[in-house]
Amino acid sequence: MHSTADRDSAVVRFADESVHIGPSASRRSYLHIPSLIEAARQTGAEAIHPGYGFLSEDPDFAEICQVNGITFIGPPAELMQQLGDKAMARTLMAQAGLPVLPGSDGALTGPGEAEAVARQVGCPVILKAVAGGGGRGMAVVRALDELPRAFTETRAHARTVFGDERLYLERFVDDARHIEVQVLCDGHGSAVHLGERDCSVQRRHQKLIEESPGPSLTPELREAVCAAAVKGALAVGYVGAATFEFVLAPSGEFYLMEINCRLQVEHPVTEMVTGIDIVREQLTIAAGLPLTLRQEDVQPRGVALECRVNAEDPARDFTPTPGLLTEFVPPGGQFVRVDTHAYPGWYVGPDYDSLLAKTVVWAPDRAQALARMDRALSEFRIDGTGLRTTVGFLRQVLAHPDFRSAQHTTGLVEAMGRRRVG
Amino acid sequence: MHSTADRDSAVVRFADESVHIGPSASRRSYLHIPSLIEAARQTGAEAIHPGYGFLSEDPDFAEICQVNGITFIGPPAELMQQLGDKAMARTLMAQAGLPVLPGSDGALTGPGEAEAVARQVGCPVILKAVAGGGGRGMAVVRALDELPRAFTETRAHARTVFGDERLYLERFVDDARHIEVQVLCDGHGSAVHLGERDCSVQRRHQKLIEESPGPSLTPELREAVCAAAVKGALAVGYVGAATFEFVLAPSGEFYLMEINCRLQVEHPVTEMVTGIDIVREQLTIAAGLPLTLRQEDVQPRGVALECRVNAEDPARDFTPTPGLLTEFVPPGGQFVRVDTHAYPGWYVGPDYDSLLAKTVVWAPDRAQALARMDRALSEFRIDGTGLRTTVGFLRQVLAHPDFRSAQHTTGLVEAMGRRRVG
Repeated sequence: MHSTADRDSAVVRFADESVHIGPSASRRSYLHIPSLIEAARQTGAEAIHPGYGFLSEDPDFAEICQVNGITFIGPPAELMQQLGDKAMARTLMAQAGLPVLPGSDGALTGPGEAEAVARQVGCPVILKAVAGGGGRGMAVVRALDELPRAFTETRAHARTVFGDERLYLERFVDDARHIEVQVLCDGHGSAVHLGERDCSVQRRHQKLIEESPGPSLTPELREAVCAAAVKGALAVGYVGAATFEFVLAPSGEFYLMEINCRLQVEHPVTEMVTGIDIVREQLTIAAGLPLTLRQEDVQPRGVALECRVNAEDPARDFTPTPGLLTEFVPPGGQFVRVDTHAYPGWYVGPDYDSLLAKTVVWAPDRAQALARMDRALSEFRIDGTGLRTTVGFLRQVLAHPDFRSAQHTTGLVEAMGRRRVG
Repeated sequence: MHSTADRDSAVVRFADESVHIGPSASRRSYLHIPSLIEAARQTGAEAIHPGYGFLSEDPDFAEICQVNGITFIGPPAELMQQLGDKAMARTLMAQAGLPVLPGSDGALTGPGEAEAVARQVGCPVILKAVAGGGGRGMAVVRALDELPRAFTETRAHARTVFGDERLYLERFVDDARHIEVQVLCDGHGSAVHLGERDCSVQRRHQKLIEESPGPSLTPELREAVCAAAVKGALAVGYVGAATFEFVLAPSGEFYLMEINCRLQVEHPVTEMVTGIDIVREQLTIAAGLPLTLRQEDVQPRGVALECRVNAEDPARDFTPTPGLLTEFVPPGGQFVRVDTHAYPGWYVGPDYDSLLAKTVVWAPDRAQALARMDRALSEFRIDGTGLRTTVGFLRQVLAHPDFRSAQHTTGLVEAMGRRRVG
């Protein structure tokens, strides 16, 4: 299924069959459920893979698929509903015995309760939209007197962007790392984890570089965080692929942040270290088959890194730069994987996410993986009218001493920006 | 270093420094030793990697490098001399205890000796040029009365093509498989093997599809053939990367065919199953460092396949088809590696080999690897004025029942051609 803007995308070119579902504006195509269902009916599709954007975490869409006899490739609608509500997910996981940050017990009733909870857990705290996602709808509060204003602003933002003004609050961990665990569950009581990813290189809470395994984890910590994710998934009877996102504090303690009920952009790094095709597993689970993987079959090997090459101008605060691709030659060679919808002549439009090409590499160890990624990025040939990319910026991050020594936290990119400006 | 024809190749584009060494005709550029040495001197190069064509197995070139204080990345010249003489390699390896096919003891003195030996070992036999290579300079003889004519013709061919008319003879094995073992040896007495490859899909003794591990080998046979290769390499004090090529008879017996003293075109399949960068190992060996790999570190995983996408017309007996690439979009996605010098706008010239892009895939098992390769080949977008490729033909081989069931031998492609013509 594709919109007008994606008419000539590589995805459509490689499809056996394709259906045009509407104009470029996503609310009239990719977010317009009746068009999607109609396209599935037209083609006799048995199932829909929702990808990792748009409706991939929308319980209504999952339910409408079900009502129409179409398999939604993801968890059941009710589960997605419960886990998509971040405050409820927090409560459910705390009940299952997973560590969560001290904070509000579900959604806050108002600024008064926010202040009471903040006083109890101690600043800094973070306010988050219950329906939030994609790094939006959150605010860090460092002093109690900032709280009322932050509450009003974040609530307004949540109402506008997510149509749900509810907020919750928890302690904010400084100098934290973002660690997430990939889990697969069939509908027959089996669950396995595929190890963890470190996604601490972020700008505005959006990931730029991801790697597996997490370079700062001890084997004991790895075991503990992966076991926690599997325990959480089994506790709620999860079905499908899920990602459990944790905050790792400098103390070595970790806390559940949220659960993503879909494939992640960064799933290739896990595929490269485990040799497991996660989308294939999603399909067999959706077909109702039991997992053939046992936990002991998952033997991660070496190190994989992903860099997100976006069509953005890093010098102008990562503003998206639409444009026509006049040259596009991705890097190749051993253990280099490039996932992209682009090709020479493709127009990078302003309608959707600016992600242009995921560049993923594997190597036996982290030093070789960093070298291979830098080589791969240096070989990318991308040119276009008005188009800029994050390639140069990503190479700066790869060369940063904190990243090289795996001492970096989620504050790295911001700190690099401060240094540049200063 | 590049010729005029390769001035705009991807290799030159990605090089830090490049030197033009002569016109397109290889005897005036890539085979012209003084130009190569001069280019190395000009740039202060410490070492030369000879690739896998042209002078990569030329002992004279290796010696001239040495005389000029440049490291030749490969074995010492004397070893290359000995092992490049196929009759001598045969003798040396028989002495080392490796199984060789019954045949002549070194080069034949003339047609009389050829007949005597053929009578002794029994038909069919194969006549081979001592200096042969690349599938040329050999003739299968099925009856004794065909021998005198075959001898005269093959000798004439050998004289013309290799400048060395010497021939030897050995028993020819029908319905054989081509199995080869990748070996790495440092100059310090250590040798490891990286498992074997099956390269039985050939046309005119040139490989089209290669895979690792060999799908028809039992663990015991694999162990035996790999151990034989390591024994042979240690017996002659080999240094560098080598490939020991064996004929595997339907009976399960195997015989050494020849030793390649260089990187092979098909080395990526071994890299994908072992995770080891063979070129990197060549460089560290050439630098005089001991191997850091031990045999127990080599843990092959899954199955890798390589398909050679050539600029040839399969409908016209694989005639090379030079032309300008107007479209060139290689496939991507997980566990797909494409090694190529081509890009949109590249002119595929008539001067060199017709190999356009090596397409290599990995998967946990052979069935998935075959499916992934077919998917990858189907996504290749190659177009050009007058240009044809082997993509469609390769997909036919992948779909062939004998190949799918791993029952195929080196006769597969010829048999497919007969069926097409019939």
